[in-house]
This record gives sequence, C-alpha cells and structure tokens, in this order.
Amino acid sequence: MRKLSLSLLLPALFCINAHGDEGMWLFNALPTAQLKQKYDFDVTQEWTNHVRLASVRFNSGGSASFISSNGLVLTNHHVAADTLYKLSTPQRNIADEGYYATSPEQELKAPDLELNQLVAIRDVTEEVNASVQEGMPAGEASKARQAAMARIEQQSKDESGLRSDVVTLYGGGRYHLYQYKQYTDVRLVWAPEAKTAFFGGDADNFEYPRFCLDVTIFRVYENNQPAKIEHFLEANPNGAQAEELVFVSGNPGRTQRILTAEALEYQRDHRMPRVLDLLRRKEILLQQYALGGPEQARRGHDELFGIQNSRKAYTGMLEGLQTPGFINRKQESAAALQAAAGSDSAWKTIAAVQQKRIELQSRTGSLRSQLYGIAEDLVLMAAEDQLSSGERLREFRDSNRQSLEQALFSPAPLYDDLERVQLADELARFAETRGGSDSLVQQVLAGKSPRQRASELLADTQLFDVAARKKLAAAGTSGIANSQDALIQLAKILEPEYRALRTLTEELDEQERQAYATITEAKFSAEGESVYPDATFTLRLAYGAVKGYQEDGQDIPANTTLGGAFEHETAHGKTDDWILPESWHAAREQLDASTPFNFVCTADIIGGNSGSPVIDREGKLVGVIFDGNIQSLTADFYHSETQGRAVAVHIAAVLEALDKVYDAQALRQQIGH
Amino acid sequence: MRKLSLSLLLPALFCINAHGDEGMWLFNALPTAQLKQKYDFDVTQEWTNHVRLASVRFNSGGSASFISSNGLVLTNHHVAADTLYKLSTPQRNIADEGYYATSPEQELKAPDLELNQLVAIRDVTEEVNASVQEGMPAGEASKARQAAMARIEQQSKDESGLRSDVVTLYGGGRYHLYQYKQYTDVRLVWAPEAKTAFFGGDADNFEYPRFCLDVTIFRVYENNQPAKIEHFLEANPNGAQAEELVFVSGNPGRTQRILTAEALEYQRDHRMPRVLDLLRRKEILLQQYALGGPEQARRGHDELFGIQNSRKAYTGMLEGLQTPGFINRKQESAAALQAAAGSDSAWKTIAAVQQKRIELQSRTGSLRSQLYGIAEDLVLMAAEDQLSSGERLREFRDSNRQSLEQALFSPAPLYDDLERVQLADELARFAETRGGSDSLVQQVLAGKSPRQRASELLADTQLFDVAARKKLAAAGTSGIANSQDALIQLAKILEPEYRALRTLTEELDEQERQAYATITEAKFSAEGESVYPDATFTLRLAYGAVKGYQEDGQDIPANTTLGGAFEHETAHGKTDDWILPESWHAAREQLDASTPFNFVCTADIIGGNSGSPVIDREGKLVGVIFDGNIQSLTADFYHSETQGRAVAVHIAAVLEALDKVYDAQALRQQIGH
Repeated sequence: MRKLSLSLLLPALFCINAHGDEGMWLFNALPTAQLKQKYDFDVTQEWTNHVRLASVRFNSGGSASFISSNGLVLTNHHVAADTLYKLSTPQRNIADEGYYATSPEQELKAPDLELNQLVAIRDVTEEVNASVQEGMPAGEASKARQAAMARIEQQSKDESGLRSDVVTLYGGGRYHLYQYKQYTDVRLVWAPEAKTAFFGGDADNFEYPRFCLDVTIFRVYENNQPAKIEHFLEANPNGAQAEELVFVSGNPGRTQRILTAEALEYQRDHRMPRVLDLLRRKEILLQQYALGGPEQARRGHDELFGIQNSRKAYTGMLEGLQTPGFINRKQESAAALQAAAGSDSAWKTIAAVQQKRIELQSRTGSLRSQLYGIAEDLVLMAAEDQLSSGERLREFRDSNRQSLEQALFSPAPLYDDLERVQLADELARFAETRGGSDSLVQQVLAGKSPRQRASELLADTQLFDVAARKKLAAAGTSGIANSQDALIQLAKILEPEYRALRTLTEELDEQERQAYATITEAKFSAEGESVYPDATFTLRLAYGAVKGYQEDGQDIPANTTLGGAFEHETAHGKTDDWILPESWHAAREQLDASTPFNFVCTADIIGGNSGSPVIDREGKLVGVIFDGNIQSLTADFYHSETQGRAVAVHIAAVLEALDKVYDAQALRQQIGH
Repeated sequence: MRKLSLSLLLPALFCINAHGDEGMWLFNALPTAQLKQKYDFDVTQEWTNHVRLASVRFNSGGSASFISSNGLVLTNHHVAADTLYKLSTPQRNIADEGYYATSPEQELKAPDLELNQLVAIRDVTEEVNASVQEGMPAGEASKARQAAMARIEQQSKDESGLRSDVVTLYGGGRYHLYQYKQYTDVRLVWAPEAKTAFFGGDADNFEYPRFCLDVTIFRVYENNQPAKIEHFLEANPNGAQAEELVFVSGNPGRTQRILTAEALEYQRDHRMPRVLDLLRRKEILLQQYALGGPEQARRGHDELFGIQNSRKAYTGMLEGLQTPGFINRKQESAAALQAAAGSDSAWKTIAAVQQKRIELQSRTGSLRSQLYGIAEDLVLMAAEDQLSSGERLREFRDSNRQSLEQALFSPAPLYDDLERVQLADELARFAETRGGSDSLVQQVLAGKSPRQRASELLADTQLFDVAARKKLAAAGTSGIANSQDALIQLAKILEPEYRALRTLTEELDEQERQAYATITEAKFSAEGESVYPDATFTLRLAYGAVKGYQEDGQDIPANTTLGGAFEHETAHGKTDDWILPESWHAAREQLDASTPFNFVCTADIIGGNSGSPVIDREGKLVGVIFDGNIQSLTADFYHSETQGRAVAVHIAAVLEALDKVYDAQALRQQIGH
C-alpha cells in the first residue's frame, strides 16, 4: 500500500450497499446507526472532532496523525520514503540507514512536503450545480462548473486563509468544500532502517503475517518553532486486542465502487492492462538502471519500490475484475436502478464515454519524466496566468499556487543519468503510442533516436537548476517565448496536443459526472441515504474489528510479535530482504519478544490510507496502517472481509523499538504529551 | 545472443546490397569475388565442404561445431543451458556449478536434444512453384505450395534416410532442399560454472569488453558408441589476431532486411512494442516466482535469462527502427525497385497484409505454457494424422515426426508450481487480448479467476507424466475425444480458433511470399545476382576481420585477456554477477594472464549464431561466437560495422581453462584429434 504512483486518477465516484465493516465514511456523515447496532458505540461530536483534527494528510500521497502537543507527526516509512531519499546523499543514506535527531537542530527540513489538517467541511452542491444550465454542452458545463468551484475555493481562501478544495463526491452527486490548515515546514525527527521498515521486501509485500516497523516521525514547525498542536493522539500500548473495535482515520486515494458494468469492462480490458504494461516497463527500466552500481540502485530505489508496489496491486485488481461473476452481478443490479431512475440513459452515456476513452489511447501530448514535467508546468503556467484564476486549469489557480510552487521549485536532487534513461524511454513510448510516422513524433524526435534525443535535450536544458526555473517562471509568457531551453521548447511543441487532450478528457469527465449524479439519485431513492462516496484522497473514517482469518485451512492470528520477526528472519535463512538491521540484533536480548508487532483488522482501506492512525473507542492511538493483504486488493471495486484485511504496525512495537533498539527515550517520552 | 526465445518467427525474407563485411551467405552461393578482392582469399570446394560438414545445428536454437573425431561438439554454455537445467536437480545443480565427465560412463544423456549436420543442398524452386497456378487464391496457393514442399521432403527422406527440409529463401524467391544427418543421442561432457559462462550477468550482456567462458562440450553417440566424425575442426590457439580474416559458420535465426517501409512500420509501431510488453511481463512474472526461494530461482533461471536477453535485444532493435532516417531511406529506395518491377503492386500487397496483421492482434487461440503446448500438440496431432502427410500442418508431417516426438515425450522435468504461475498468467493474458466478455474467454475461464482456473486445470491433468502423453498419442482421435484430462479438454475448446487463425496467417504469409518473390526478381534484375537471403535458421557463412573499434572517443581493443577477467571482477567490487568461481581463483597463479579471452570481429551475425565456430583461412577453429555488442543489435534490419561487432570466446582461453582451471587434460587432448 502506498501513494498512488503512476495511477491516473479517475473522477471521484461513490458506493453504497455497505456490508459488514465496509465503508470509507465522510466525517460529516458517519454511520452512527451501524456503529451503535454492531459495536454499541456512540459517536459523539467531541470524539469526531478530536479524531478529525488529530488526522494529517501528506499531500504527496499518504496519511498520518499528530502524536504530541509539540508537533510530532507519525506516518509510514514508505510514505516518508520520497523525502528520505531527497534528504539522502551518497555519503548519508538516510533512506536505507535511518536517522535520529537527538536535538531540534538536527531535525532535517523536508524539501517539499505539504501536510494538511482538515479544519472544516461545508456542502456547496447547490452553488456548484447552479452554475450549470440544463442542456449545456459538456465542454461548456465542465468549464462553468470548474469556474464555480474555483470561485468558491478562492472566496473561502480569501476569507479564512485556509487551503480550500471543493471535493467532488458520489461521482458528481455532491460537492463539499474542505478547508485545511497547511503545514509546509516539516522536519525529519526519526526513521528506522529500510531493512526493518520493509522487512521481507517485495516478496512479503501485500502478505500477512508481517513483521515491519514501517513508521517514521516528523515534526511540523510554524515560524521556525515546533508547532503547538491542540488535538493529538495519545498512545494506548495495550490496545488493538483481538475482536476489539478500531477506527482508521485517513485519506483513501481512489476507489471505483460505483462503476457501471461497461466502465468496469473498460478498466478490465483496456485501462488496467495498459497501466500494467507501463508499470512493468518502468520496473524493468529502473532495474536495468540499478545494475549500473550501488549509487544508481540508491537513486532509483524509491521509485522502483513504488512501481513494484503498484504493479502488484494492479495485478490483484485485474485478477478480481477478470473473475466473471463480479461484472455479471453489476449488470444484474443495474436493472433495478434503471427502473428507479426511469431511464437507462445515464448508463448509456457512461458506456459511450468508455468507447471514446479507448479511442484516446493512441494519443498523448505529454512525457512522464520529472524534468519534462517541470518544463510542461512552466509553459502551461505562463499561459494560464494570463487568465483569471477561475478560468485556469485547476492546478494553476491562485488557491493552489503555494502547493504548485513548492513542487516546481523543490531543491530535491534530480540525477542527470536517471533523467536521461527515463526521458529516452518516454520518447520511445511516445513514438510507440502515436506511431513512428506521426508528425508530432517526428517533431519531437527531430531526426534522432530516442536515446540520442534524450541526451541532446538534457545537454541543452537549465532546468536542473532551481534558480533557472524560478527565473523562467518570473519571466512569464515572454520568458517562455524567448527561452532557448531545449525542454521548454519541447513542451511548447507538445502544448497544443496536451491542451486538446485535456479538453477532451474533461468533457468526458463531465459527462460521467452528470451520469453518475443521476445514478446516485436513483440509488438514494431506491436504497436510502445511508451511503458513503468513493474515495477521493480526502479524510474518511473506516471501522472494523481486530481479527485474524483462515487461509488454506490455517488460522492466521490477528497479530504477530517482535520475537516472530527474528523467527521469520531465520526461516528465510537471513538472505535477501529477510535480514534485520544490526541494531535489532544488538537489542534482541533487551526486547520483550511477546510485544505485538503487526496486526490486522477488517476496516475498509486502500492506497492513500498508508500512515493512517488506528484508533480505539477512547480516541487513543493503537497502530499505524501500512498495508492491505493480497485478499484486500479488490478494494478498488468491492470490500471483502472474508479474508481481506488492513495491516498495521502496533503502537506497542513502535514504543518498544524507540526505547530498546534506537535509544530514543527522549523522543518516546514526547509521544502522547 | 541466444536461441530466439519467444520470437514469433516471420517468414524467411532476403537482403541484398551487401556492404563491407555484410552478409549471411548460402554455402552453395558464397561471395567468392568479394573474398578474393578484399581479403585475397580463394574459396575452394574442399574448404567449403569441410567447414559445412564440421558445422552443427542445435535444433533447439543455436549453433556448434564438431571438434574431434570421436564426436565432441563445442557450443555455448547458454545454448546448452536448456539441457543443463533439465539435467540439474535440487541436489546436483549442473547449470550453476558446471560438470565434467572424467569417463564415458559419466557423460549425461540430454533428454531431448537434436543436432543436425547439413549434408546436401538442392535447388527445388521450379518444382515448388509448379504447384501454384496463376490466379490461385492465396489460401489455396499456400496449401498447394505446402503440399509440394511436403512431397519433396518425404521423397528425399524416403530415399536418403536424412532429415529433409525445404527452406524458403529470399522471402519466397527461391526454395532449397536441405538434407541433414540427425544426432539425437547427445551427452554432456563438460560445462563450466555459470559464474564464468555469464560473468557480468545481464548488465554486461551485449556489452564489450567481455570476459565470459560461455562454452560447453557435448559428445554425439551412435548405437551407444561415440560417433565417428570425419569432418571436425582442429584448434588454432594462435589464431584470431587483430586484422585477421575469419569466418563464422552457423545458423542465424532470423533477419528482416528485405522488409518494405510499410512492413517495418508494422514492426516498429505494433509487433515490437507488443513483443516487448510480453517479454517484460514474463520477466517480472519469473522474477516474482524466483522470490519464492533458491529452488524457485533455479527452476526459473534459464527461461528468465532467455527472456532478459531477448528483451534487451528487442529494445535495441526497436530503438534502431525508431530512428527516423532508416525507414525513410527504405521508402526512397523502393521507387527504383518499383520501376524495375514495372509496378508497385507487390509493395501494396505487403502494406495491406500489415493492416490485416494489426486486425489479428486482438485474436488468439493458444496459450504460451509448456504443458498447454503439449496438450495442444496432442489434440492437433490426432486430427492431423487422419490426413496424408503432405496435407498436414507442417510440424505434424512424417518427415518431422522424430523431432516432434522427441519434444513431446521429453522426460525433462516440469515444475508444478512454475507451470501454475505461468498458466495463470497466460489465462489472464488470453482474457486481456480478446477482452473479458468474449465468449471463448468465458468458456476458457469457466467462471473462475485466471489463478483459480490454472490451479484447477493442473489438478486435473495427467500430462506431467510422459507415459500418459504416450498413451494419449497412441490412442489417436478416439483417445482425444474420450479424454477427461482438463488440459486436453481446454485444447479442444481452443482448437477451432487456433486453426482459423493459423489458416488466416498462412494466407497472409503466402501473399507476402509472392510479393517478396516479385521484389526479389526486381532486385536481381536491378542489382545483379550477388545477394544473400535473409536468415532462416539454416547454415550460413559470414566473414570479417578481427577488429576493435572506437566508442566515446576510446579505443576498444579487439581482444580481452584472462588476466582482465580478474581485473574486471575487482573493478566491480566482487559483487552480484561479477564474482568469478572459486575454481578460477584457485587456478589464478597457474593461468597465463595474457591468454586472449574474448574477441570481436566484423562478421555479420544474429541470434541463432550462438555457438558458431569462428574459423581461420586454413579452416581451423579460433573461437566460438557467443554475443553481439549493443551496436550490432540493428542486425535484424541492417549490418553496421562502424561499431557493431560479433563477440567470441577465443579458443586459446578454452584450452587454457580446460588445462589449468578444470584439470581436464584428458578432454583437452581429444580436441582436434
């Protein structure tokens, strides 16, 4: 489980018919009746506010929580990995070797992290929908809707000073304004070694039982001082006992449970196979790059890990979709909804949109390269800034400027050789997608092979240099028009096609939004209002029980222990990814082997939930989500709790390791205070 | 360089306009004038016969030579690898650890090797073409032509007792009958450790300078005695000096130098990207399987290596095709040929065939699994055997029966867990190719997920057992009709689609054959008769000079030395694939460090040439081809000798290693005697 690397986010959709412990619930529409009935739990406003305000979103793609009054933030090592790599150098390999700041001066500032705390939610559906008139063409409707959303966001930001996002829920059935407090001064306090954080490596990933200390601790600062945090989670080291009710408060990235049969068929037969081809391609590319030596392996490791993780997740998702029964049931249930809607036209619209998406597969106007992405943003930004904020492409609006600039001007290292390998591959893929005879391909390659062309482009760009990026950004349209930078010139060549495709895609998205809004209303009228929307990388509450399961006739217990990690190491002959760090072996005698290490629960989670706090009835911290087992990989489309489980690090293991393995008593004592 | 794993062989084509040391020449049409002019070499009939008869084809995909009167055969370790893996067990890892039979009793019989010695060549073009009447539809023409070829082959086999293949040359411009002596009792004598055979691993593959002892020695037997060999190669350990003329006699698998611009565009935009997606998919699949443990890694290693090798080769080939100039030049040269032909209709036919091939991409009637392949062969064979030999699909004719049965009834181990992983992936790929809603997909999956279905199929098949295969084969059509074997039943479901696609493909092949025959005649009339046909995995002679080259401003010398291998190991920190075997370190003091190890020459080679002897003017053995450098990977489409080089093991290194590293003096003394 991990930030949604390479996933092309779909429009936000929704899901209903919650069964068992299913559901990723909105904080302003929690399943109070179900919780009372099944678990005899009373949801109070105070409890809800406390949990919401103690929850943290990593804008880079992950979840976390405040765990002290002086700004400590607990997340996963793999959510932190991007930052750990950026803070690493060939001399100081923090990502592999870990880090511990024993004094505030040693806390290392992350180059480009943005953390969000959800302060308030407001329903703005009427205001958004009022902007769209009956019978408007989809392109026009999309623009009007975007402009209304931008206006609401800008007004909110102006009034509150908070980051303000209008979130599309239920695939377009509802629009809510989310206001966030932003933290952009985020410093690394402590990270363990990669060997314990990702113990068992790719082989154990998505498996259970597990033995991973997949956690890292940051601290947020304001005005160069540790931020004062009112709502933080106290730790309950005795918590997370079997059968106990727990909650997961985090930001699931994307589910697609509302999809119609035809939309699922598009996913199954077109999008997912293509994404998997892409992931495998990039995986092999980075593996080959890593053969260049240990430094290359280090540079590519974080991205490679993310790709392997996604590849494994997508393989499981596709397997679920290819099982014939699932889509058949969707087809059957559509009939009842069409009766409720009085028409099947929404379903037909969605089917037609899938056909158009297939046609668009042979077009592309962009390259998946970090440096090219910077060039593209600079070119687009100059043009977009000529428009009023509401008319711009979403990411270039004033309300998003701070986040955009933090990414664009990040001092994080870019490696010339890695960029060259990736850009060459992207140029080749561009030629494959559009066909080598395509005139845009010919312009892009300029008579060279992809590899030659990539070398040439990188030799003639200044964009490795943050100052050069800032200078170009400041110079606006004339800066772009006069730039001799090879990557900027390339982005200018592609700009018209990029914009044409973006427009087409946004029209299709709008058609789907309107259709899913119709389906949503049909579901509301057929099945009542107690439903949750598909995940949208916004704060949700899931719940469930700490609970083992059966697999191949064996009972899998709910939790593992610290002692089990050493046994697991021995069982794998202390080879490959099953080697615990030296610090663990040194501390083995001191450790309480019976301390719970990882545990599973039935809560409904998905990528983006990584780092989410697991919370008990009293609102105390009992664990940190870091994975789902392989049986949970269908979660994109449906929740299954026969065997599907969320996997978390037990808080007792975190405290025990800080104390006995990492000599971090000073840090340990701040937690929960 | 390696057997053409996973390559979907195209019909045999041709090439002309030889430049430099270009050309893979027919033994009955050698470039005598060029050799005289450039190298002052007189080709004699005696020399030619000797070289041809000393050359050996590994029917599994590779080349070799006889090197003693008592049946010793020298090839590459990687050509032998398939057999080495089949002879290995968890207890006796020959593939990794090597082998040396110090007595005849210890020589290990390969389970399914067939070696061929080319005895005679006869032009049968007129006889083949006489079977096709003017104006016949392509399907009918293809059948008539196949029947004529089968008749010629059968007659030849009946008269001579030799394996008899009619080979399609110049894409259909000529047909030659090749008669082979077959050796099917082939025993392993000696193999080095994988660590020296593939020193540097995937990272060094297709690179130069290299330091690989990529050789293995077999012995052929007749009547349970070492075969008596008249024509074998003597070793010349002083040979292969810089600038020296050398010859390569081997079986290049497939080149496509005749392809028209439109056919190349199909390769560039459709076939190669798809093949690369497939290779990367299988590479990841086998990597994941290998994570299961050392025994899994061993089981999957040979196939994984072959796939990595092909992936690297195809990536280089596609890069060549994506360089805009190459196809443009093809387009320009077509005009002159169309004038000579008096029409562009052949080119138009070829262009139209490519469109039909694109349409066929979304159909498939087979699965790439070893066990499924056996089921498919058994089902097809029963039906085909109802026809007269000449009417059957090519591989089921009487003339090919011995080779077919050797493969079908091979006792080589099949691993249940590996088969399951591969079959599950093939079922998923089948669903992706045809779309999950396709009725054939639904039949094949039978309501299960690909993984569940694969487990079920393998639980209900007897085909792991060779005796069960033989019993089914003996029972003919009624055996197949009544079989309860799950894989046989699956193959029966797919049989109609397999046959339909085969027919369609053979029609397209015939259209291309006729069109390329027309283009061939135009080339002959425009440019004279001194041309060589595209590679067809039949015996060819290439020539060139031992010669270094320049790369990134550096001089790359023609040969490396044994001492250099130890330096290369040190330079890579003795890690990963850069660890020489212990036997080498033990013998280091005894070895002459200045002995040439690997060397390069300008000869025109490609996959299938692996194991080819490199021969000097006197017909003596100076080396064994095992790779081409990365710059030679365009060879599928054009020969380039600016930097492109064939890479060989120097015979001096083989002799030195046998003597000093492997204590194999008894074997060493047989070589050349």
